[in-house]
Amino acid sequence: MRHVLSVRVENEPGVLSRVAGLFSGRGFNIESLNVAPTFEEGVSHMTIVTYGDEQILEQITKQLHKLIPVITVDSLAGASVVEREMMFLKVRAEDSRRGEILRIAEIFRCKVIDVSMVELTLEATGDKEKLDAVVKLLQRFGIKEIARTGAMAMCRSME
Amino acid sequence: MRHVLSVRVENEPGVLSRVAGLFSGRGFNIESLNVAPTFEEGVSHMTIVTYGDEQILEQITKQLHKLIPVITVDSLAGASVVEREMMFLKVRAEDSRRGEILRIAEIFRCKVIDVSMVELTLEATGDKEKLDAVVKLLQRFGIKEIARTGAMAMCRSME
Repeated sequence: MRHVLSVRVENEPGVLSRVAGLFSGRGFNIESLNVAPTFEEGVSHMTIVTYGDEQILEQITKQLHKLIPVITVDSLAGASVVEREMMFLKVRAEDSRRGEILRIAEIFRCKVIDVSMVELTLEATGDKEKLDAVVKLLQRFGIKEIARTGAMAMCRSME
Repeated sequence: MRHVLSVRVENEPGVLSRVAGLFSGRGFNIESLNVAPTFEEGVSHMTIVTYGDEQILEQITKQLHKLIPVITVDSLAGASVVEREMMFLKVRAEDSRRGEILRIAEIFRCKVIDVSMVELTLEATGDKEKLDAVVKLLQRFGIKEIARTGAMAMCRSME
């Protein structure tokens, strides 16, 4: 089962290694993770995506709570969450194919962030399914490189 | 000094904890990090942003190379790199302020990803300076929450 955790931590050396260690120590693979400072001084926000047994995840969550630099841990799921990731995709794009690639990019509202005689680099944002669809449609042109941030998640506003 | 590392690793439990541990072991703070699978089976891509002494970073890079699950390490800098991050920003937006917020969002090409009677959540992508400018301009409306992926970087295409 897929799990998305939103974790706020104090921004100090070692916290990422300890958080990640809690997962690997139980054989849990982290699918994706991103961490960066927030607007609160000294506080960073992490989104962690992982797959596995619910019970083991509950244990990990409890242990996360016990780590001193961890401030809050929220398990996010369902319709009450906005979830998106960003992807860079570098694709072969000779003159004759460029128009076709740009049309696909437009449909998915990708931004062109770099261009050369033979390649285009696109930025796409959206949920996993959308980004996977972009990759699938551009595969036949020859993908050179992909980088993804992993999902970032935030609770929706309550009315 | 600011450093951006692009690291390709085999996607197995423990690799993130070990990579992060190399930094914290030398008192290096990781400013931001994102890691997610690529289109190569079993391979994940990480972008790490850190600040510190060049010589120590060189030592860390050498040790990264020695870790078995690490495939490549590239230090990215300068004009030959595309670098951007994604941010979610939840801001107070009562009826009377919403128009003003949406105009700022439009200038920065933010997408509205959630809306309620009293709040708006925006998605912005761009470099650190742009995202910092968005935060600064929206601060006076009352920011409720921010999440950032940290910078993601990719080499530009060579002609």
